[in-house]
Amino acid sequence: MIVPAVLSFSHALVRQAIDEGGIAVDATTGNGHDTQFLAECVGPAGKVYAFDIQQEALARTKQRLNERGIANRVALIHAGHHEMDQYLPVEIRGKLQAVMFNLGYLPHGDPTVITRPETTLPALETATVWLTPGGVLSVVLYTGHPGGPEEAEHVLQWAQSLPPKTFQVMHYQLLNRQQAPSLVLVEKRKQAA
Amino acid sequence: MIVPAVLSFSHALVRQAIDEGGIAVDATTGNGHDTQFLAECVGPAGKVYAFDIQQEALARTKQRLNERGIANRVALIHAGHHEMDQYLPVEIRGKLQAVMFNLGYLPHGDPTVITRPETTLPALETATVWLTPGGVLSVVLYTGHPGGPEEAEHVLQWAQSLPPKTFQVMHYQLLNRQQAPSLVLVEKRKQAA
Repeated sequence: MIVPAVLSFSHALVRQAIDEGGIAVDATTGNGHDTQFLAECVGPAGKVYAFDIQQEALARTKQRLNERGIANRVALIHAGHHEMDQYLPVEIRGKLQAVMFNLGYLPHGDPTVITRPETTLPALETATVWLTPGGVLSVVLYTGHPGGPEEAEHVLQWAQSLPPKTFQVMHYQLLNRQQAPSLVLVEKRKQAA
Repeated sequence: MIVPAVLSFSHALVRQAIDEGGIAVDATTGNGHDTQFLAECVGPAGKVYAFDIQQEALARTKQRLNERGIANRVALIHAGHHEMDQYLPVEIRGKLQAVMFNLGYLPHGDPTVITRPETTLPALETATVWLTPGGVLSVVLYTGHPGGPEEAEHVLQWAQSLPPKTFQVMHYQLLNRQQAPSLVLVEKRKQAA
């Protein structure tokens, strides 16, 4: 396939922002796929902070990381991503190379526990502040569950409103599929345009 | 920059669809940037058919190709892209590896000569028929000129309606810029999904 799938495209772009030894955040740990991906990107000298409000998600992620021998690169934090700035060490403020959001609900988990605009938007805003210049924020949006289309609409409006001198913002979507996820990627410019 | 520019992203994807010795079409020759790109992709053994309704565009393109010594790879055709199937040799029907559209008007040319949905949509439809399985159709959309937003809307509606078993379709756009071009890419599946 030439047309990239949304998740593989997000990984291809996020990977470019991360150096060995870098620092990244998984704002929505879920089953830990992105946490693992980020831990592999930052390498043994790097650090990933991974947030989830569900203990079940953190447990699944811990097992995934243990199986790969990379759990020591990750701090698993049982809190919502809107509380990010209370849990991240202040010395890494402005130094995050990547922050990943995968919205919606935990696959094979409780479908009534979903991300919601009232916490997602503050978390996104916080993430832009904690990003390093040259760092990226990725958001995978889903519209196939109740509340999904409204949340996606809020995120897109927020992304459109980001100041272009500081942020480069893109939206990537598959067009002829119902309820396909889509990707918003925000890059913090190294220098103001 | 990590967020790809629209034109460089279109080239990166189209390049993947083309082999040395392949056949491609530039449906909107303009200044010849895409014609040159396609001629370089297909190589000395390949062929590019390049359409434009303006003699000025074909002249500029011919000069560009001559300067690079690759004019013999390109057939310049003074006709609208909606007439494509009258000008392309019938033996390459279903064998095109790429067809590129860059809509709008000729830069530094007559701004009243613009592409229009009533010819663009039939041309896009024809292009999907002439594509080989695994081939791609790229469309760069502009909304900064009169008629541009309406044409873009028509193209997006058309793209959304393509049958997903036969075509994979994506839309890529920058979000926080006014009137940035956007990209529609249609990939004809090698096998029906």
